[in-house]
Amino acid sequence: LIELSIDPRDVRPAAPQRLVALELIATGKALPKQCVTSAELDRRLGHPPGFVERRSGVAQRYYVSAAESQSALGAQALRDALARGGIAPDSIDLLISASGVQEQALPNTAARILHHAGLPAGTPGYDVGASCLSFLCALQVASGLLHTGAYRRIAIVAADLASRGIDWSQPEASLIFGDGAAAVIVEAGRASAGIAACRFETHPAGRTFCEIRAGGTRRNPRVGVDASDFLFHMEGKRIFRLASELIESFLQRLLEQNGISIDDIDVVVPHQASHLAMAHIRQRLGVPAASVIDIYAQHGNQVAASMPTALHEAVITGLATPGRQMLLLGSGAGLMLGGMVLRT
Amino acid sequence: LIELSIDPRDVRPAAPQRLVALELIATGKALPKQCVTSAELDRRLGHPPGFVERRSGVAQRYYVSAAESQSALGAQALRDALARGGIAPDSIDLLISASGVQEQALPNTAARILHHAGLPAGTPGYDVGASCLSFLCALQVASGLLHTGAYRRIAIVAADLASRGIDWSQPEASLIFGDGAAAVIVEAGRASAGIAACRFETHPAGRTFCEIRAGGTRRNPRVGVDASDFLFHMEGKRIFRLASELIESFLQRLLEQNGISIDDIDVVVPHQASHLAMAHIRQRLGVPAASVIDIYAQHGNQVAASMPTALHEAVITGLATPGRQMLLLGSGAGLMLGGMVLRT
Repeated sequence: LIELSIDPRDVRPAAPQRLVALELIATGKALPKQCVTSAELDRRLGHPPGFVERRSGVAQRYYVSAAESQSALGAQALRDALARGGIAPDSIDLLISASGVQEQALPNTAARILHHAGLPAGTPGYDVGASCLSFLCALQVASGLLHTGAYRRIAIVAADLASRGIDWSQPEASLIFGDGAAAVIVEAGRASAGIAACRFETHPAGRTFCEIRAGGTRRNPRVGVDASDFLFHMEGKRIFRLASELIESFLQRLLEQNGISIDDIDVVVPHQASHLAMAHIRQRLGVPAASVIDIYAQHGNQVAASMPTALHEAVITGLATPGRQMLLLGSGAGLMLGGMVLRT
Repeated sequence: LIELSIDPRDVRPAAPQRLVALELIATGKALPKQCVTSAELDRRLGHPPGFVERRSGVAQRYYVSAAESQSALGAQALRDALARGGIAPDSIDLLISASGVQEQALPNTAARILHHAGLPAGTPGYDVGASCLSFLCALQVASGLLHTGAYRRIAIVAADLASRGIDWSQPEASLIFGDGAAAVIVEAGRASAGIAACRFETHPAGRTFCEIRAGGTRRNPRVGVDASDFLFHMEGKRIFRLASELIESFLQRLLEQNGISIDDIDVVVPHQASHLAMAHIRQRLGVPAASVIDIYAQHGNQVAASMPTALHEAVITGLATPGRQMLLLGSGAGLMLGGMVLRT
């Protein structure tokens, strides 16, 4: 396959990084009201009992109703983080919306979340987008903005409604997903907490392996569009081949070049891509299962909301206490790889 | 109108900012092949001669053909900037796509621009989205990322194809637009160049004044969508009322709080929103017409590509020489206001 002809040696190494101050001061999450078990999906889709859970590894996931919205769910997650942290809404200097898919083409999702969130009028908001890695990119963006002093406190909100684009005729690309939102509030904080390493790589050879073709200027009524263009398409085997070809050397570039060993990592917060991807990460990293945050069976793959929801889980279960090193790691459409070592 | 009940005094002032290092090392632009004069649009739309130009203030604009794409046009602008600056493609550490509307819902537009741009596989790319102010937000994001040392050289590309969403039945919201792309390459650079002031405000009261409702989770075949949801809607009078109510105090918060007077500004680079908006800015700021970059009549409103195209114009006409202070200023869907004082 021509798409697999990337030589990892061609990927330029980055210079070793210094610690970039960043402190999580609060996290929160939100789920739609409707919880759908895999047994219920078996019934709805006409599968034999046990089929959906065996195939997807998901026991339950949440789907929005037609009356719920992405931005309202995002605002709910933000309010949860504000409440848990005892943080005044008017102390947020910037809201970054970090969803995988937008609520609509225009305006940005941040404006629509701000409407529901009840922050003071004038609070600025913009979107950072990198499919399932949007949250990780937004964390890096926030660290930079805090560093310059442009903002003192930034809220990052990731909300995704995969159920609005699921192609039910594709078991591989439908049964694994769930809807949800999560929020993280960050400051520059203590000098000892921050980003010890961060790396992203985009490999456009994989840009068509995972996509929703409609939604912008490429496929719309003016140039031609059909019903399938609105649905999520995934070529699982090709993604898996490209990602597993790249991940080993990616981890090397992320960790070793920054003088970090996998033994220095206390907690792994992976994108909750699928049960196979989670098993693969555990195997590759060779870390104890207990140190890997795994909320997949209870939530499914929540696109960009997965990683902050998993990070919230690490925080509320006491795994993100000061002095720990967390490895946030994932892949996304594009094809994109992303990783960050976060010192708490 | 309930939407106009915002008291500008409620908008929290930001602390005065220090100069954040940022240097433009190259700029470039790209236009679709097809140039459409207003006389030609009069004929196509059945208007009397002179109607379109009188109504829109645009003499000519460019529209893509069905075969052209947003990401290819963005990549063309990037190659123009690389060539003008004599910059090696493999020296770009990060590509930020800063379009107003995405190419498709998934993956991000950055991955698709990277495909066409011919940068080395693995070069990371993510999107920053804030409708017409995406480029200005991306400049702020880049300054932060360069500041932390995460990247040394960042390319920002804004590409927008308004023609793919124009509602021809609405003269006010159709005749003003044109397609285009522009690219800017930045580094931390000299200590004397950078961002002297930057401010964004989102006023969600205006979130429905300017929108494309389809393109994401809100309006799609699963929850219901109609042909008009794919088109750009604008309530010009309401936007104008809200923006002009806010702009005076916004400028105060942007400039005066940072100890900058409008007399200190050498060049104004406004978003090329409309001829009325351009005239309004000239009047409000009270600056000489020659110091305001005005490329509107030859390009139309190019959404997020307008501001970097105007910035490119300032650079190639010799107005952005070292030591100057440029005011970048605009509004966007959301409703959002944005301004930046850039020392060159």
